[in-house]
Amino acid sequence: MKTIKTEIIAVGTELLLGQIANTNAQWISEHLAFHGINVYYHGVVGDNLNRVQNTFQLAQERSDIVIVTGGLGPTDDDLTREAFQLLSGLSIDEHQESMDKIEAYFSRLNVTMTPNNRKQARIFSGAKVIRNSMGMAPGMIVHYEGTIWVFLPGVPREMKAMMLEDVIPYLRKKLKQKDIIQSLVLRFIGIGESQLEHELKELIDSQINPTIAPLAQNDGVVLRLTAKASSEEEAMLLLNQTKEEILSKVGEYYFGTNDETIEQTIVSRLIENNLKIASAESLTGGKFIEKLISVPGVSQVCQGSIVCYDESVKRNVLKVKNEIIDTFGTVSRECALEMAKKVSELLHASVGISFTGIAGPDSIEGKPVGTVYISVYIKDGKHIVNKYELTGDREGIRHRAVLKGYELLYNLLK
Amino acid sequence: MKTIKTEIIAVGTELLLGQIANTNAQWISEHLAFHGINVYYHGVVGDNLNRVQNTFQLAQERSDIVIVTGGLGPTDDDLTREAFQLLSGLSIDEHQESMDKIEAYFSRLNVTMTPNNRKQARIFSGAKVIRNSMGMAPGMIVHYEGTIWVFLPGVPREMKAMMLEDVIPYLRKKLKQKDIIQSLVLRFIGIGESQLEHELKELIDSQINPTIAPLAQNDGVVLRLTAKASSEEEAMLLLNQTKEEILSKVGEYYFGTNDETIEQTIVSRLIENNLKIASAESLTGGKFIEKLISVPGVSQVCQGSIVCYDESVKRNVLKVKNEIIDTFGTVSRECALEMAKKVSELLHASVGISFTGIAGPDSIEGKPVGTVYISVYIKDGKHIVNKYELTGDREGIRHRAVLKGYELLYNLLK
Repeated sequence: MKTIKTEIIAVGTELLLGQIANTNAQWISEHLAFHGINVYYHGVVGDNLNRVQNTFQLAQERSDIVIVTGGLGPTDDDLTREAFQLLSGLSIDEHQESMDKIEAYFSRLNVTMTPNNRKQARIFSGAKVIRNSMGMAPGMIVHYEGTIWVFLPGVPREMKAMMLEDVIPYLRKKLKQKDIIQSLVLRFIGIGESQLEHELKELIDSQINPTIAPLAQNDGVVLRLTAKASSEEEAMLLLNQTKEEILSKVGEYYFGTNDETIEQTIVSRLIENNLKIASAESLTGGKFIEKLISVPGVSQVCQGSIVCYDESVKRNVLKVKNEIIDTFGTVSRECALEMAKKVSELLHASVGISFTGIAGPDSIEGKPVGTVYISVYIKDGKHIVNKYELTGDREGIRHRAVLKGYELLYNLLK
Repeated sequence: MKTIKTEIIAVGTELLLGQIANTNAQWISEHLAFHGINVYYHGVVGDNLNRVQNTFQLAQERSDIVIVTGGLGPTDDDLTREAFQLLSGLSIDEHQESMDKIEAYFSRLNVTMTPNNRKQARIFSGAKVIRNSMGMAPGMIVHYEGTIWVFLPGVPREMKAMMLEDVIPYLRKKLKQKDIIQSLVLRFIGIGESQLEHELKELIDSQINPTIAPLAQNDGVVLRLTAKASSEEEAMLLLNQTKEEILSKVGEYYFGTNDETIEQTIVSRLIENNLKIASAESLTGGKFIEKLISVPGVSQVCQGSIVCYDESVKRNVLKVKNEIIDTFGTVSRECALEMAKKVSELLHASVGISFTGIAGPDSIEGKPVGTVYISVYIKDGKHIVNKYELTGDREGIRHRAVLKGYELLYNLLK
């Protein structure tokens, strides 16, 4: 079977001025992908008759389905109908039901309808009309020389309702789609995108169903598996088989599925192990504990933190021994370990984690910006201190230090 | 003069799958519009060599400037270079400086560089290289048969830095743009967007140069003033006149200009007043202090924080009197004030600020979710406790509580 090529075109100068982002194209793409309808292009064109017509012409030549958002409203700027008429030569009629609705609206408001509002009820002859339950202008589906054209308003809530209620069921029927599409997201920590891809290269290249797509995210790396099957059970089976294959290669970096965050995973592990945690934070300044406390239910496992940004707080509140700071400095292996130990004792926590280092812009104690020590101290005596040399600006270093802390904890708790 | 036509192309299948929105195109469009550079088209194409090449071919035919984002990374999916080479026939060289940077990065991490990383240092011969201060892959500007091609990474923060530092100045120079466009951003705290607009309605409606645009941001409300003039002096004069008019109406809520954040403003005020600060945080979990510590130079004024998430930490570490907690509960005016006072004493800070309340999802001590007390205690004896009833989900309530804390501090310190 030939692959169906779909294209999404947004009409509107406001998009080209950057006043809004083309979130319609994202939303439509996500929903079409879920139903196995492949989108090949997005385009945005301004409210200019000639350029809209040319954009439509190209879409007619290269795509099987074209979804157009915007340009159906009442003003002179709304040129989608006119442009498609220039291309297709189709005649345009007034759609009585839509016109009645528009007139009823104005009479209900007791406002005189300006003549340009009639424009919104105009549809191509032979078009399937898509009712707009949220607004005025109806949508249309038009078959023209082998291509299915779908015209929708640009207002997101109107467009979304029409896509879900009418357009997607229509397209699935036309394309005789029976397949179920199911996704599974696998989350990793402690491995970069390029290393992950390197480890999985053969699998990614050879894998067709499910497909495997790597994505770099702010908090780690993610693989999205997408399977096509005749039933949900079959899709899940395919996804789980591929998941197993992936984990046999890079399982040591895997921590969770779908929307699960690393901080949620850590909270779950602490609950399972009946552990309570506290942090002592210098350069991270509370960023570690703040992230942990964002998880609902964290109160079962989180005592709190000593943010010991100033040296005096490390000495007087956290009670790090003076001789350690005087001998090794605050940015040292020894100080990090002592901070983790002391905070676990002081806050009655079974796990203490500490962060000390230099976020910049200035260096401290003669050590370069980016030097970070992280220590985890577990009450039964197990403990670890790692040194990192992180790159980036002040915020980048602080962010990466927190992620390294979560990685370290995750590896100790699993 | 002929109108310069600009086109923005994003390369990446993740956009066509709807996994992310093309916010890069919006951001670039907004910034180009600001400099009078007209964008005629946006396009998105997937990681497919043939389709990327065809998309580039069309852009070459119809546009004077083409800005391409994405497809410069290390993986096999990154095809931007290859597609443009097919179109242009330009040869590709390894850029030594970029290669050195990539190798240094991996050697610093003590990780073996996988061979695919070399790809990122490859540039078209004769291209102007745009350094990437935030990441690995450099950008390029290439002149090819009358069209200026700009290639940038798809990672937003990398792309933005390169646009602002290099690409926009380059294009302005090429286009011989002489009008100066100057902006001034005024920042407000403690007033909503609609109230601000209401107070300034006449001024906003009647004002042409500079224009006044209100923007709601995550951390408060912002007005952007934009003036066009023949010199920087003239632009600044226009901007300052309008600023004075605005401040005569809503000056009490104004705290800073341009990129100045409320936390920077607070740090400056603390420095000026020779004050040191510490926080005691329960529901906010370190979010207040973390934000403050993001400011470079904060070490002059910040001692740290006691994140007393668990009640035992309020009692045993912060030494809030048992009778206060037993009588009024932890979510109370009395407890908030005691927390602010105790943290200022314990951490030797002249200012203590405290947060206690209920972020949800569950209520505590019979008080509803969203109940928050914030207290500021200043050493000479001045102190305040405010009660708030905040709305939103857990993260929304915690975020709003922190902003209210900054607002309270700002009003006390000004």
